[in-house]
Amino acid sequence: MRRGTEEIPGYSYGLAEVARSTVSVEQLAELKVSAGFTEEDERYLRLAGQVLGDQVEQVVHHWRNDIIASIPSLARHSRTPEGEAIPAYLERSNARFCQWILDTCLRPYDQDWINYQQEIGLRHTSLKKNEVDGVRSSPYVPMRDVIAFTAVMNKTIKPYLTSNGNSADEVEKMHTAWCKSIQIQMALWVGPYADTKQAPKEW
Amino acid sequence: MRRGTEEIPGYSYGLAEVARSTVSVEQLAELKVSAGFTEEDERYLRLAGQVLGDQVEQVVHHWRNDIIASIPSLARHSRTPEGEAIPAYLERSNARFCQWILDTCLRPYDQDWINYQQEIGLRHTSLKKNEVDGVRSSPYVPMRDVIAFTAVMNKTIKPYLTSNGNSADEVEKMHTAWCKSIQIQMALWVGPYADTKQAPKEW
Repeated sequence: MRRGTEEIPGYSYGLAEVARSTVSVEQLAELKVSAGFTEEDERYLRLAGQVLGDQVEQVVHHWRNDIIASIPSLARHSRTPEGEAIPAYLERSNARFCQWILDTCLRPYDQDWINYQQEIGLRHTSLKKNEVDGVRSSPYVPMRDVIAFTAVMNKTIKPYLTSNGNSADEVEKMHTAWCKSIQIQMALWVGPYADTKQAPKEW
Repeated sequence: MRRGTEEIPGYSYGLAEVARSTVSVEQLAELKVSAGFTEEDERYLRLAGQVLGDQVEQVVHHWRNDIIASIPSLARHSRTPEGEAIPAYLERSNARFCQWILDTCLRPYDQDWINYQQEIGLRHTSLKKNEVDGVRSSPYVPMRDVIAFTAVMNKTIKPYLTSNGNSADEVEKMHTAWCKSIQIQMALWVGPYADTKQAPKEW
């Protein structure tokens, strides 16, 4: 996918070090039904992956530099507790952010994918945030911020989906598939938060 | 809003019996920024409220009867533990579901609104599910199911937004505003889940 994923720092998709999720493929199938996620959505995500493939750095730059950087309550999660920038942290996590877009569109949603959703969730909680990058930053990202910001991602991804000249109907279907996947992923990320001893605080 | 809300069973919006949320208007303002929710979105939600006003029963019928009823893992939340239908429960909660659409579009997002989001969240957890309707049903709705199903609501609401002959651009803006509001509401609903002692199980 895109490039050797071994080049992405801290990206451990499919590796043995990623803990097995408590969610099974069967439970994910149920979740897909609840979200109305069908094989058509899978096909349109693949198409979205092709369209977004060359644009992921641009998309992540848009999210991080044009939006998150100007919202103090979000920007703090990639800064030191004193508010200083940590360029190496941003570079590493941006590389994973880019890959996450591709994984959303192009990976099969199998047990490895489920496991990595759990890992992503954990890396936003106090159990694992900052750990893989060895940085000193906010102790966790409140789940409310994660959920709220997906609204921005869902809205701002759409223009990028039009860039290959697909029909309005195809763009709409790619976008719908993307939005469904994001809800499914959030449903999975909530698990690690609920399992976190500090959950009430971390909300 | 639509009709005397005192006619809606168990609907306690703005009443003293609704506990004050731990979330303040200032924290909601921060959440709105994180979701990219602006005054333009507020205006388009008002417009959506006008467009949806006469259609809310139809929308809720679509969600409940055409979709939820055919998904056992969701349908069980309005049935007895033995799987029997509870028509009176459905009727009451459908009336509130209709009003929720209107509240999403037409209410000011003030402290009363925040408090009622907490109440809605609680009524999906084991702390309060079934209580206001005095029914015997599933003990709670897992947060993952709530999040996943919002993908269905977001997708299926769109055609209803076109029914007043608004331009494609207006429909898109109404839909975007709706989707942002849903993410904000989910961010608020997660709080009661995190505060629930049974949180890990309820995920």
